[in-house]
Amino acid sequence: MTLFDGADEAGGTTAGPAVCKLVVAYDGAGFRGFAAQPDQRTVAGVLAHGIEKVLRHPVELTGAGRTDAGVHAWGQVVSFDALPGLDPDRLMASLNAMLGPEVVVRAADLVPAGFDARRSAHWREYRYTVCNRRVADPFLARTSWHVPAPLDVRALRLAADPFVGEHDFASFCRKGPEGTTTVRRVLRSSWVEIGDGLLVYEVRATAFCQQMVRAIVGTLVDVGLGRRRPGEMLGILRGRDRDLAGPLAPPEGLCLREVGYRP
Amino acid sequence: MTLFDGADEAGGTTAGPAVCKLVVAYDGAGFRGFAAQPDQRTVAGVLAHGIEKVLRHPVELTGAGRTDAGVHAWGQVVSFDALPGLDPDRLMASLNAMLGPEVVVRAADLVPAGFDARRSAHWREYRYTVCNRRVADPFLARTSWHVPAPLDVRALRLAADPFVGEHDFASFCRKGPEGTTTVRRVLRSSWVEIGDGLLVYEVRATAFCQQMVRAIVGTLVDVGLGRRRPGEMLGILRGRDRDLAGPLAPPEGLCLREVGYRP
Repeated sequence: MTLFDGADEAGGTTAGPAVCKLVVAYDGAGFRGFAAQPDQRTVAGVLAHGIEKVLRHPVELTGAGRTDAGVHAWGQVVSFDALPGLDPDRLMASLNAMLGPEVVVRAADLVPAGFDARRSAHWREYRYTVCNRRVADPFLARTSWHVPAPLDVRALRLAADPFVGEHDFASFCRKGPEGTTTVRRVLRSSWVEIGDGLLVYEVRATAFCQQMVRAIVGTLVDVGLGRRRPGEMLGILRGRDRDLAGPLAPPEGLCLREVGYRP
Repeated sequence: MTLFDGADEAGGTTAGPAVCKLVVAYDGAGFRGFAAQPDQRTVAGVLAHGIEKVLRHPVELTGAGRTDAGVHAWGQVVSFDALPGLDPDRLMASLNAMLGPEVVVRAADLVPAGFDARRSAHWREYRYTVCNRRVADPFLARTSWHVPAPLDVRALRLAADPFVGEHDFASFCRKGPEGTTTVRRVLRSSWVEIGDGLLVYEVRATAFCQQMVRAIVGTLVDVGLGRRRPGEMLGILRGRDRDLAGPLAPPEGLCLREVGYRP
């Protein structure tokens, strides 16, 4: 730690073991999701390729959230082991010149060894934007779900409340491998009215299972349209059956907004 | 007019001669501008094709502003001669189902014969958005010009003032055919700070010449970067020489916001 601290004072370069932490924003439209996959254009794939080009050595990236195909991020956090001499400011500038504006590094720092973007994360916050206007908006189409029929905002709010707390979210998750838990702790679940028909669902949890936010939003919008009652949410949670909940909301409305770490 | 007035009361259909007026928003990224051109994908081309498919007769469209390739619109106004029986609400719904969300009809009305989207227009208002942050934003990249170096907003404001009034804008226009005037009357020219590094230049004029807003913004940003002084603007206007002004600002920051008609 002494070496690292000293290096920090010297302006962000280090001679000892450290981890490079990046805060990354991206437009998810052109990607098959965040996680690297062979023969697919993914955010992690493009980012790793860029980092390797700048640093001239292979890197293994860890991301805080595995966003699905088409899902955006404003505050995705990515980490990898830094070799001595890494200059995070230079790396950030090179990556932004190479990958921006589709993928943009908003911050780059060296942090003590042991930091892991995924395992060290304390919470993740997603935002889902619904454009509730009769007529679509060409400039919001890439980042929101256009719902033309009027939504009952009071019902949306009532329905969002029961998700707070620790629950088994099996009804709102894509089935994972046998034996994986779908219990998650939601810290916040609420709708914000931006005005002009824009509604944003903000949900913060210690972790999410796959497609969880989109399944919750699809079900909440069913409530907003009068197809379900707010009181049904708890029963759907307790049923632990994906068929009980509503359809998946489309990916373009979803954005990984922020990841929280202990100070 | 009696027939038309009666039809208006009957819910928007008409048996007499009338004009259909559409207010249209579009994401200009995928188009070679507004005006129809053979073998090019243009907004007017796509729109006319859609209208002809719904109404089953040929139409000739007039647009209030000939936006360049890549330029957006929120309030482009389009008109064409309506045949008896045209239902503007149905036309709007059909066009939006067919062309949205890239091209969206925000309003459709039957107006008295003689209305012409271009000739009847009293003023046009454009907005140009500059994203003045060190790091680009993936979600603003399609609708703004990313200028990473800090802009002097006070200088931008001072430089915008002299454009108000009637001037020969030859220094800020693409040269048109011999004999065409480049004299225009600007009613408003000002910068609005949205916050978070977003700067919007709002310019309203009775009419614009080609590339005028982009040439003005390119020159103003030169001022904001300290490459020119605000006091130079009047001299550039008086010089009537395109080489005196700055470079063209990129098209994606520009949006035809609104077109005004006499009540």
